[in-house]
Amino acid sequence: MKVFIAGIDGYLGWALAQYLTARGHHVGGVDKGLRREWVAEMGSDSALPIADMPTRLAAFREKYGRALDYHEGDLLDYAFLRDVLADFQPDAIVHLAEMPSAPYSMIDQAHSVWTHTNNVNGSLNMLWAMREVCPDAHLVKLGTMGEYGTPNVDIPEGFFEVEFRGRKEVLPFPRQPGSFYHLTKVHDTHNTMFACRIWGLRSTDIMQGVVFGTRIDEMGDDVRLRSRLDFDQCFGTAVNRFCCQAVIGHPLTLYGTGGQTRGFLPLRDSMQCLTIAVENPPKPGEYRVFNQFEECYNIEELAHKVREAGASIGLNVEIAHYDNPRKEKESHYYNPDRENLIKLGYKPTHDVVAEMRIMLQDLLEQRDRIQQYAHILVPDIRWDGTRRRSEMIGSLEPAKS
Amino acid sequence: MKVFIAGIDGYLGWALAQYLTARGHHVGGVDKGLRREWVAEMGSDSALPIADMPTRLAAFREKYGRALDYHEGDLLDYAFLRDVLADFQPDAIVHLAEMPSAPYSMIDQAHSVWTHTNNVNGSLNMLWAMREVCPDAHLVKLGTMGEYGTPNVDIPEGFFEVEFRGRKEVLPFPRQPGSFYHLTKVHDTHNTMFACRIWGLRSTDIMQGVVFGTRIDEMGDDVRLRSRLDFDQCFGTAVNRFCCQAVIGHPLTLYGTGGQTRGFLPLRDSMQCLTIAVENPPKPGEYRVFNQFEECYNIEELAHKVREAGASIGLNVEIAHYDNPRKEKESHYYNPDRENLIKLGYKPTHDVVAEMRIMLQDLLEQRDRIQQYAHILVPDIRWDGTRRRSEMIGSLEPAKS
Repeated sequence: MKVFIAGIDGYLGWALAQYLTARGHHVGGVDKGLRREWVAEMGSDSALPIADMPTRLAAFREKYGRALDYHEGDLLDYAFLRDVLADFQPDAIVHLAEMPSAPYSMIDQAHSVWTHTNNVNGSLNMLWAMREVCPDAHLVKLGTMGEYGTPNVDIPEGFFEVEFRGRKEVLPFPRQPGSFYHLTKVHDTHNTMFACRIWGLRSTDIMQGVVFGTRIDEMGDDVRLRSRLDFDQCFGTAVNRFCCQAVIGHPLTLYGTGGQTRGFLPLRDSMQCLTIAVENPPKPGEYRVFNQFEECYNIEELAHKVREAGASIGLNVEIAHYDNPRKEKESHYYNPDRENLIKLGYKPTHDVVAEMRIMLQDLLEQRDRIQQYAHILVPDIRWDGTRRRSEMIGSLEPAKS
Repeated sequence: MKVFIAGIDGYLGWALAQYLTARGHHVGGVDKGLRREWVAEMGSDSALPIADMPTRLAAFREKYGRALDYHEGDLLDYAFLRDVLADFQPDAIVHLAEMPSAPYSMIDQAHSVWTHTNNVNGSLNMLWAMREVCPDAHLVKLGTMGEYGTPNVDIPEGFFEVEFRGRKEVLPFPRQPGSFYHLTKVHDTHNTMFACRIWGLRSTDIMQGVVFGTRIDEMGDDVRLRSRLDFDQCFGTAVNRFCCQAVIGHPLTLYGTGGQTRGFLPLRDSMQCLTIAVENPPKPGEYRVFNQFEECYNIEELAHKVREAGASIGLNVEIAHYDNPRKEKESHYYNPDRENLIKLGYKPTHDVVAEMRIMLQDLLEQRDRIQQYAHILVPDIRWDGTRRRSEMIGSLEPAKS
C-alpha cells in the first residue's frame, strides 16, 4: 500500500516509516521539523542522539533499498499539503503531525492558541485536502486516550449505546480532556467524524495511550535510523522520562500520589497497532475509533517496574513524589475497552519490565548526555497558568501499591 | 452591573447593549465590524439600513444619557482584549463575537479554517484574558442548539446522567453538530468547560435557537438605533429570510421537505434570556448550560406562519421547496429541554405570528432595498464543498403540516 505519514520526523513517525517499509509498503511523508524546535525551546534535547533529515534519508535508502518520498513543509500551508497528497495518491494517511504535549499547551496564552492553530487547523486542512485530491484514502488519525478524561464509568471505543428517558441511541462517548493539547485532539475528533459523515471520507481515529520505548527491531544498530527519545517535562512521556532519570540517579518524578491511571504501550506495540489500522481500512464514509494501549497502569506501579528493571541490571532507582503541577484526579476509576485492535490481531507485549530493561541499557550509553540536562527534570509548568518548580513531597520510598 | 459585550455591533449585540442599558446596567464592548464585511462578501446588505458605529454611538448617548464604552478591535489581538477587559473590569461578559453562519463556514477550505481561527482562538483568548485580568467575571458565552445535532433521544441542558454497564455518571451530553461553524461552537464548549474546571472561571454557555425579529421596544423609532436584519443564504436565519422574501413576493425557500425541526425565539426573547443569565450568575468555578428558545417548530410550519402573518396584512405569500444544499436529516425526533431559563423567570413570547406581522410591516418599508438583492435569495453553498444554485422542486403549495 502507499502510506503517507504526516509528522514523519517524529518519535512515532520515523519508526513507523521503517516498520511499514520493512513490511513492503511504499512510504512517503512530510514534516516541518517542529518537534526538534520545541524540545530545544524546553532547554532539552533527545536523549538518544538523532541524525538530521538528509542523513536519515540516506540511511533509510541504504537499509531499505528505496528512497523515502519525503517533503519538508507545514500542514498549515494548504496548497503544499494538497499538492503533495495529489502527487503521492496515498491509500492511507497516518496523521502524526500534531504538537503532542499537554504541558506545552498550558504554558501561556500564546502556546495554548498556537497549539490550537497548529493541531486543529492543520488537521482541518488534511480533511479538506483529502476531499479535494484523495477522497478514497484512509485517514489514520492519532488522537489520545486523554480525550476521554477519567469518567466514573467504563470507556468504550468512541461510541456507546445509552438509554435516556426511555429512548435508546448510539452516541459519541463524551470527552472530558485534561489540557488544551488534549482539547485540540477532541476538536479533531469532532471535525473528522463530521467530514466522514458529509463527504464520505473514511477514518480510523486512534485513541492512543502513553508510548514508551527506545527502539523497534527494524532500526537495528544504525544510529542514523534511531528515533528520538525525550525526557523533558513537555515532550518526555512518563516511562521515557523515568528511564532517563533512572540512568543518571535522579529520583523518578511522580506527580502527586502517583495514583493516576492511564493506558500505556511500548513503541513496538504502537507500530503494530497503527499498521493493523492501515492494513484493515474501514468502508468509505466510516468513522471508527480504536483505543490503543497494551494495559492500564498507575504511575506509581510503573515507577516500581522501572525500579525492578533497573535492579536487574545493577541500577539503584529512587522514587520521589513531587507536588502535582497538573490539575487532575490522582485517584479514580479507569476501565477503558481495547477490543477493536485485538479482534484485528493485535498481540500486546505483556512483559513491560523486559521492555524497560532494553530502554535502560540503551539510555545508559547516553548517561553523560542526559546528565547535562539534570536541571530540567523537575516540572515547573503548572495548570493554573504560572511557572513554579514542583517541590519534592512525602516519602522517597512509597509503599508498593 | 458592568456588562461587557464582545460583538456589540452585531444583530444581537447592538440590541443587547440597549436592552441592558435601559435596565440600568453599565455597558461596554468591542467589535471589529466583521459582520458588515461578511454580508457584503455574500453580495448582500442588511434589509434594515443601519448606521455606522460613530452614528450609533451618538444616538445611543442621546437616547440613554450615557456613553457606550466602545472599543474597535479584534479578539484575536490578545493584548488589545486583555487591556480593554482590565480597564473595564466587567461583572459579566456576553461573548457574541463569533462568525455565526453554517454555510459561510462550508464555502471552502479557507472559510472553514478562518472560521476555526476566528471563533475558537478568539474564544480561547477570552478565557485566558479573563484568567489574567478579571477571573471573577461571569462569561455568558453564545453557543447554539445546533451543537447537539438531532439525536434520537431528548436533549438535556448540557449534561445528562447515564448508566453504562452498571455504573452511573453525570456526563456532558454528546455533541453532533452539522457544519464547521457549529463545530467551532462545540470546540468552545469544551474549552470553556475546561477553563471553569481548572481556573475556577464561571460561565453560562447558552445553547441558543434560531433568532428572528426586526426590533425590540427599546429601539423606539430612531433608525440609528435599529439592529441589522440579514436575509442572504449565510447570515439570514430562516424566519428573517422568509419575511424578506415575503415582502418582495419571492417564494419562501424551504430546503428539502422543510421537516427539519429546531428551537426558535424572537429577538426580544433572546434579550430577555441573555439578561436573565447576566443577572443570575453561577458560582465561581461553575459551568452551566442553558438551552435558549421559545418553542420548537419545523421549517414548513414556520413558513405557514409567515404566510398567515402576511395574509393578515394583505400579502399573498408563496412557499416553495428547493433541493437541500445542506446534508441534514429532514425528518427526525427533536425534543430538547429548556427548563433552566424558565426556572429563572423567562416568559416565552408565544404569539410568533404577531411577531412576524411586526417584522413584515418593518420590512415592507424596505421592499425596494430588498428587491435589489432578489438574485441572491436562493442558496448555492453546498455541504459537499461545491457551489450550485438549488433548484425549485416539488409543489409550490405543500399540504399544511
